[in-house]
Amino acid sequence: MLEQIGKNAKQAETELRNLAAAVKNKALRQAADDLTASSAVILQENAKDIQKAKENHMPEGLLDRLKLTEQRIQAMAEGLYQLADLEDPIGEVLGMKKRPNGLMIGQKRVPLGVVGIIYEARPNVTADAFGLCFKTGNAVILKGGSDALFSNQAIVKCIRKSLQKAQVTPDAIQLITDTSRATAAAFMKLHQYVDVLIPRGGAGLIRAVVEQSTIPVIETGTGNCHIFVDESADLTMAADIVYNAKTQRIGVCNACESLLIHETIADVFLPLLTDKLREKNVELRGDAAVCKILPEAVPAAEEDWGKEYLDYILSVKTISSVEQAIAHINRYNTKHSDAIITKDYENAQKFLDQVDAAAVYVNASTRFTDGFEFGYGAEIGISTQKLHARGPMGLEALTTTKYIIYGNGQVRP
Amino acid sequence: MLEQIGKNAKQAETELRNLAAAVKNKALRQAADDLTASSAVILQENAKDIQKAKENHMPEGLLDRLKLTEQRIQAMAEGLYQLADLEDPIGEVLGMKKRPNGLMIGQKRVPLGVVGIIYEARPNVTADAFGLCFKTGNAVILKGGSDALFSNQAIVKCIRKSLQKAQVTPDAIQLITDTSRATAAAFMKLHQYVDVLIPRGGAGLIRAVVEQSTIPVIETGTGNCHIFVDESADLTMAADIVYNAKTQRIGVCNACESLLIHETIADVFLPLLTDKLREKNVELRGDAAVCKILPEAVPAAEEDWGKEYLDYILSVKTISSVEQAIAHINRYNTKHSDAIITKDYENAQKFLDQVDAAAVYVNASTRFTDGFEFGYGAEIGISTQKLHARGPMGLEALTTTKYIIYGNGQVRP
Repeated sequence: MLEQIGKNAKQAETELRNLAAAVKNKALRQAADDLTASSAVILQENAKDIQKAKENHMPEGLLDRLKLTEQRIQAMAEGLYQLADLEDPIGEVLGMKKRPNGLMIGQKRVPLGVVGIIYEARPNVTADAFGLCFKTGNAVILKGGSDALFSNQAIVKCIRKSLQKAQVTPDAIQLITDTSRATAAAFMKLHQYVDVLIPRGGAGLIRAVVEQSTIPVIETGTGNCHIFVDESADLTMAADIVYNAKTQRIGVCNACESLLIHETIADVFLPLLTDKLREKNVELRGDAAVCKILPEAVPAAEEDWGKEYLDYILSVKTISSVEQAIAHINRYNTKHSDAIITKDYENAQKFLDQVDAAAVYVNASTRFTDGFEFGYGAEIGISTQKLHARGPMGLEALTTTKYIIYGNGQVRP
Repeated sequence: MLEQIGKNAKQAETELRNLAAAVKNKALRQAADDLTASSAVILQENAKDIQKAKENHMPEGLLDRLKLTEQRIQAMAEGLYQLADLEDPIGEVLGMKKRPNGLMIGQKRVPLGVVGIIYEARPNVTADAFGLCFKTGNAVILKGGSDALFSNQAIVKCIRKSLQKAQVTPDAIQLITDTSRATAAAFMKLHQYVDVLIPRGGAGLIRAVVEQSTIPVIETGTGNCHIFVDESADLTMAADIVYNAKTQRIGVCNACESLLIHETIADVFLPLLTDKLREKNVELRGDAAVCKILPEAVPAAEEDWGKEYLDYILSVKTISSVEQAIAHINRYNTKHSDAIITKDYENAQKFLDQVDAAAVYVNASTRFTDGFEFGYGAEIGISTQKLHARGPMGLEALTTTKYIIYGNGQVRP
């Protein structure tokens, strides 16, 4: 079954590679129209998933991610309309140059080919991932969580029909309906047919994919994001930024999880900060110096420094220099997003140079690490690996290049 | 042992990340000087490898790759001098833009971190790989073939001393001296410490790495390169190009292995071509039509179409259209380099658009797929995968980017 899906995708790849932007955009709009029109059927299928999930005692948070509503289906359609309006990155030729022997060599942006996506029980990812891959001329093979199978089947069926209406191969999107672990493992070995595998989900899923996959993986990862409040920081600005980065949305990878404070300002800054954080009942886990200043702080354990809480909890440590802050961050961060709040030019530059992360900030909230905030108009995730794409990934992350070379008879001497 | 090597490399990474270009270049020149000065010792150690290899009946071709001479050591040194003269790609900031909220967001080119190289018994790779990784601010961990252990140890020892003289951490280069398969397998799982693994060697080595590694791999691959001689081709140009691509150097991945000829010109073109190929005794393996025209041709078997001969052998097939040529190539190529020889504008564009390969040529030899020929001044290999780097990889392929963001108090609304 997997083999056939792989072959279908490769077949589709050839057609999709050179599809005109206008055709792709028309198909995306068709799919958006049809999702809205089919919402009754999709909701009906989603209700089956929800009922099963309730019987299996799925936790509230996961149930909420699984549940579709008219409004959520509308949001999926809206996402596809927006993609249709974005510029098509495919076909652009970068840096064409003439070599001394007269060869003209340039790099043309082309689709990756076949993209595999493994994700948990979030049916909205089904339409999102299709839209991003299709816009960039890729065939997509989806392997969603078993708890969302009815929903995913309904969405994929609807989109495949839209593609047929738009006279595009429906194999641009395929769903693996066997949700067993064995099939997932076999899918990860399908490098003959799949050019890249993107896991979307929790740390466990991502680790499993990295360890098992023979397909190149783009790792979208966890965020243990730090903010370092330097000696010279504008303390009001620092408190606003920490408050924003910690509490504006807690369950996201670019939220602040750990705060470093220069020791000379800790006793002034901490009360200022906790005045704000108290609004949201943020629990502080501090080192000895922090606990001394703030009696309500809980003593931090070693494992707190490396933790992504995704909750109203913040670890807090005092630091004696920017160098010590950088060393601490490079030891404990997840290479996602880290910020310094400072008025000191040299410390700002040192921090930008030496912190090893996808996004390094001076005087701004880590919450900006996001494809839309960075101006990409779309996002397939935030890469915390270093190969291919690092940080927020827009449409270009789903493309590669090929060299095109125009000659007039050149041979190698 | 591996764990310690990984830790040492991570430690070195911090120092190397921001090393000034002048310091790196000085160290590279020091290493080049010292390699030349130590050639007697290196040759002595190499002689031990050679003797052992002869006792083990190593084939001539491999022995030749293993053997060092004064001249070959000089070439290694020359490579390092040349790297010292190249521009340092590290630190460049790409596309800094101001967002509507005032954030300045740019991408800074930075080292990957720790690069692992697994290669066969070719001691020159030891110095080359070090030079490329060091120039780009990366720490390198080398795992060379067991047959070259004495040579590699001598070279690495020499370079580590040079680094110390230049006051740079010697752990910028480390060699895994345990050459067992178990250690190689464990090395491939060291993703905690190694950011990218580059296998350099034959198809078997590369397959093993792709299948076992949990570290992201850059696959440098085999080349089953095609040339399609279209109906409208300038036949003299076509014969020159095929002759060059097949015979200028046979053991390389960008040599032509398969020739497609439009059926309407086969009977004119083939005799013209074989006149030239006969100089080099090239064996032709043809389809029925080719064998009919050329009685000396050997009938090709199905497996010939997918073969990388690396020898004076060429498979030859007649084709009825550019579409059929493209379909054949996309089925049998290794996504390396393919060329069309034509005077037809539409066919040229169609071929460039639809052939799926790292480099696609019109009217030129496939032998140009090479970092030096493309003007990069250095090459770590030719990537046949689509992620991160595709085609000839220069210094930039050993870098990644990080977002640097300058703010003045921005928080996310």
